[in-house]
Amino acid sequence: MAAEVTAQTLTARHRPTLDQALEAIRTRAYWSPHPEHPKAYGEHGSLDAAAGRAAFDALLGTRLDLGQPGTDAWVGGETSPYGIELGVTYPHADPDVLLPAMRAGQPAWRDAGPELRAVVCLEVLKRISDRTHEFAHAVMHTSGQAFTMAFQAGGPHAQDRGLEAVAYAYAEQTRVPATAGWTKPQGKRDPLTLTKSFTAVPRGVALVVGCNTFPTWNGYPGLFASLATGNAVLVKPHPRAVLPLALTVAVAREVLTEAGFDANLVALAAEAPGEGLAKTLAVRPEIRIIDYTGSTAFGDWLETHARQARVYTEKAGVNTVVVDSTDDYRGMLANLAFSLSLYSGQMCTTPQNLLIPRDGIRTDQGPRSYDEVVTDLAGAVDGLLGDDTRAVALLGALVNPGVKERLDAAPGLGEVALASRAVAHPDFPDATVRTPVIVKLDGSKPDDEAAYLSECFGPVSFAVAVDSTADATALLSRTVRAKGAMTVGAYTTDAAVGRAVEEVCLEESAQLSLNLTGGVYVNQTAAFSDFHGSGGNPAANAALTDGAFVADRFRTIEVRRPS
Amino acid sequence: MAAEVTAQTLTARHRPTLDQALEAIRTRAYWSPHPEHPKAYGEHGSLDAAAGRAAFDALLGTRLDLGQPGTDAWVGGETSPYGIELGVTYPHADPDVLLPAMRAGQPAWRDAGPELRAVVCLEVLKRISDRTHEFAHAVMHTSGQAFTMAFQAGGPHAQDRGLEAVAYAYAEQTRVPATAGWTKPQGKRDPLTLTKSFTAVPRGVALVVGCNTFPTWNGYPGLFASLATGNAVLVKPHPRAVLPLALTVAVAREVLTEAGFDANLVALAAEAPGEGLAKTLAVRPEIRIIDYTGSTAFGDWLETHARQARVYTEKAGVNTVVVDSTDDYRGMLANLAFSLSLYSGQMCTTPQNLLIPRDGIRTDQGPRSYDEVVTDLAGAVDGLLGDDTRAVALLGALVNPGVKERLDAAPGLGEVALASRAVAHPDFPDATVRTPVIVKLDGSKPDDEAAYLSECFGPVSFAVAVDSTADATALLSRTVRAKGAMTVGAYTTDAAVGRAVEEVCLEESAQLSLNLTGGVYVNQTAAFSDFHGSGGNPAANAALTDGAFVADRFRTIEVRRPS
Repeated sequence: MAAEVTAQTLTARHRPTLDQALEAIRTRAYWSPHPEHPKAYGEHGSLDAAAGRAAFDALLGTRLDLGQPGTDAWVGGETSPYGIELGVTYPHADPDVLLPAMRAGQPAWRDAGPELRAVVCLEVLKRISDRTHEFAHAVMHTSGQAFTMAFQAGGPHAQDRGLEAVAYAYAEQTRVPATAGWTKPQGKRDPLTLTKSFTAVPRGVALVVGCNTFPTWNGYPGLFASLATGNAVLVKPHPRAVLPLALTVAVAREVLTEAGFDANLVALAAEAPGEGLAKTLAVRPEIRIIDYTGSTAFGDWLETHARQARVYTEKAGVNTVVVDSTDDYRGMLANLAFSLSLYSGQMCTTPQNLLIPRDGIRTDQGPRSYDEVVTDLAGAVDGLLGDDTRAVALLGALVNPGVKERLDAAPGLGEVALASRAVAHPDFPDATVRTPVIVKLDGSKPDDEAAYLSECFGPVSFAVAVDSTADATALLSRTVRAKGAMTVGAYTTDAAVGRAVEEVCLEESAQLSLNLTGGVYVNQTAAFSDFHGSGGNPAANAALTDGAFVADRFRTIEVRRPS
Repeated sequence: MAAEVTAQTLTARHRPTLDQALEAIRTRAYWSPHPEHPKAYGEHGSLDAAAGRAAFDALLGTRLDLGQPGTDAWVGGETSPYGIELGVTYPHADPDVLLPAMRAGQPAWRDAGPELRAVVCLEVLKRISDRTHEFAHAVMHTSGQAFTMAFQAGGPHAQDRGLEAVAYAYAEQTRVPATAGWTKPQGKRDPLTLTKSFTAVPRGVALVVGCNTFPTWNGYPGLFASLATGNAVLVKPHPRAVLPLALTVAVAREVLTEAGFDANLVALAAEAPGEGLAKTLAVRPEIRIIDYTGSTAFGDWLETHARQARVYTEKAGVNTVVVDSTDDYRGMLANLAFSLSLYSGQMCTTPQNLLIPRDGIRTDQGPRSYDEVVTDLAGAVDGLLGDDTRAVALLGALVNPGVKERLDAAPGLGEVALASRAVAHPDFPDATVRTPVIVKLDGSKPDDEAAYLSECFGPVSFAVAVDSTADATALLSRTVRAKGAMTVGAYTTDAAVGRAVEEVCLEESAQLSLNLTGGVYVNQTAAFSDFHGSGGNPAANAALTDGAFVADRFRTIEVRRPS
């Protein structure tokens, strides 16, 4: 090992952070070691805004050579949703060469044990954290997120989720001691005595299939959970969002090498256009774990075909907000308007169906009819996004043509309560920035059901008129059971309604946010405290992050012998 | 609730036991609250030997009415491997009636919370423990185990495994607090504050598919893990081994009722001859968890088709013992002879392939050639089983005709080093009791590979001549990777060989017993300390019991709201 990254120095540097993370996942109180504010960076070796921007600019048009074995071509072709060509090329791997090379380093990584693996992972996260400004540009120009969101969600929040996974992995692997004595009394005879050792062993090579919208946030939990449990990790990014994960792989390889481990424990699998590499890799016998975020179709394909692997999927879902009553009508509208607008609704957690009784709701401003609620919400969105500069900072750019197609088709689904408008981006004239559309649907019309019972990913929401709040909870139940949901929201001042919605969420395994009217939004979760998804409905088969997310990534092997 | 089974009394009665179990799974030291000695029973409400025998006798020829809804027929037909007809009939269920009835009790069971569920489970186990003598006869006359083994493995050891699962389930569900406050600083602005509640919710109805040989031991971990995590549990016993699980279901229903819960949270699904009920039930949408022990063919079928469920399987494997050298030759022979003989080798953990270098081994008695080792082992088995009364107490009866067929065919596979002989049972003249056969095979002969690379379940072992110990470890590796293994044993005085075998076991995920020469055997594991299987090789996809075995049986649902 290099002088500065011995086991001792890494443990001294990161063990306190690990201990805090272990405490946080137990108490679920607020905690994060990763600053959210861009100005918090620039000291202690971290890049400030200018340096981060310069580092990103220096990457454009370059070949990112990771020094991986089996590289047989260079591939790339990312175009920013903001219009610029990234021009970065990445190694394309021959899996017959790369996968065996990745396995070669596993025994030493296994023998390092849970604590050393954890602090090596924390060193990787620390170096990524130091380059948060650089990563923010990389996330912005692949996902289309506005800079501040790319900075926060792609930086500290993603790093939090990675650290959380490391903490869970460490906790899980250390539930049994490394060695144990076992003495069984035998009455008058000598007792039976054994010495037992317990070793966490990896499943094999883990595959992370990245997504377009949150390459780091959705990629880090699986990546770090697998690496911290002793597995080599092959990262297959979305072809439109390679750079953030390629930089991540580069950092991991650098730290592993300096710490005396095989760099190939983490590798990149970039693909040529149209290659469909994930399908090829997913069924390789070396691949024993897969983490995937994306479409239901491919998630189902993975679960069906990658039978040699443990497959963790986050797929499509239909998120619902039940609107029954509120004692803070303005707060509710502002909160919902923000949730619908953030990243132009391109979050797996964005509300899609707003279930509103057709007879209206009770509010602190007096009763409001269905039409008034919808009009007021449209007004709140308009107000939030009225200023173009503020709008582009909140909305971001549409991530791919499919989102724009769905947005353009939305007015055909019903009466438009709020039309989407194009917003000019002052810095990136080629960016497609659009405000959300709100379409009125009727929950009692069979024709409307196809729309509100399908995921319409992007800035499209449906104001669904329902007969009553009871009708709303019934539709919520049916929606979650049939289509899944990453989030459920509800607004009510009636304790019985709150309990009814809660009962549906407990019964159908959905995470519920109740009466959010301030600065916390239904589409945002905080690592160490909130679970992302439940793993219990069709939207995802795992939650970020809990015991189940890490416990099956390794096995515990026991060697017992007479004492 | 009845006076004696309130939440308070159950908690007071069982919380100390739960705490001890939680401590044991953490330290892995020896512990059990369930006495192994038959004479330990008879006081404090437990049945003594005579009362247990009488209780069993009273069951014969009766209808076991569990009071289940949807009972549309009465089925039965168990014949003891010891020759007697049990004549017990059980309810046959209409799943369209029974399954909805099982779901009905789940909300109240969920709301009871992890601790009350745990102590209710412990009350079930305590009442089963009190009837251990009765259960022992039920296990003996369905599995063919000799009485002492049926008593211990079917009684206290099975109860230990059930309790272990309850402890893991409780620990897993309480890793997050029931409620948490969350306060996120916002610089000069007011902090964001939320109150969060976390509830463990069940996946749905769990299905336990029981096995013929260890109905309670293999059935209890899944049954209690699922029940303790809030799921209703439907028990589908092997048609030849219904009684022990039917009695278990009866006890569980009795305790649930007395504790104020719905009895239908645990139900029996007995089947008519040839019905193939497991296939029908396994793909029902209500079934979200399946625990299965049995053939690889049906285990694979479940994993492929029961996609709506989380499927835990223990399937076939090929267990290997590497014989390299020993400093206690007699101890090794005695230990191996016992392991080959116990329950006539009808354990998933019984060694099958003994890999012995063709040039012989080093021992404390001087060098022994391959032929000498095999002859000496045959002699040790003969010595152990020379007395018929002792032999039947160790061997038990052959559990089904398939075992006898494989045993009868074994001499055709190679040179017989030890012939199987029929042993007359003094009490049960109709029982088929047979000693093990040892067949010599050659690891370098391609023709022999089909034999030693297949599971030959029953009292058949192969003394496989290998070129060297290195050849043995290579064959061990190949065997575990291709066929799986529940156990691996090795005898060596050479630390390098020990490390090499250990490395294979770590690499291929197999549990290793090294140099067992005393009263602990490779085919026996102790709850709270030893893992049964690893879940990492083809013999099983789960280990009894670890975090992964319980963590995905429930989901944690969060409700967050402004403080």
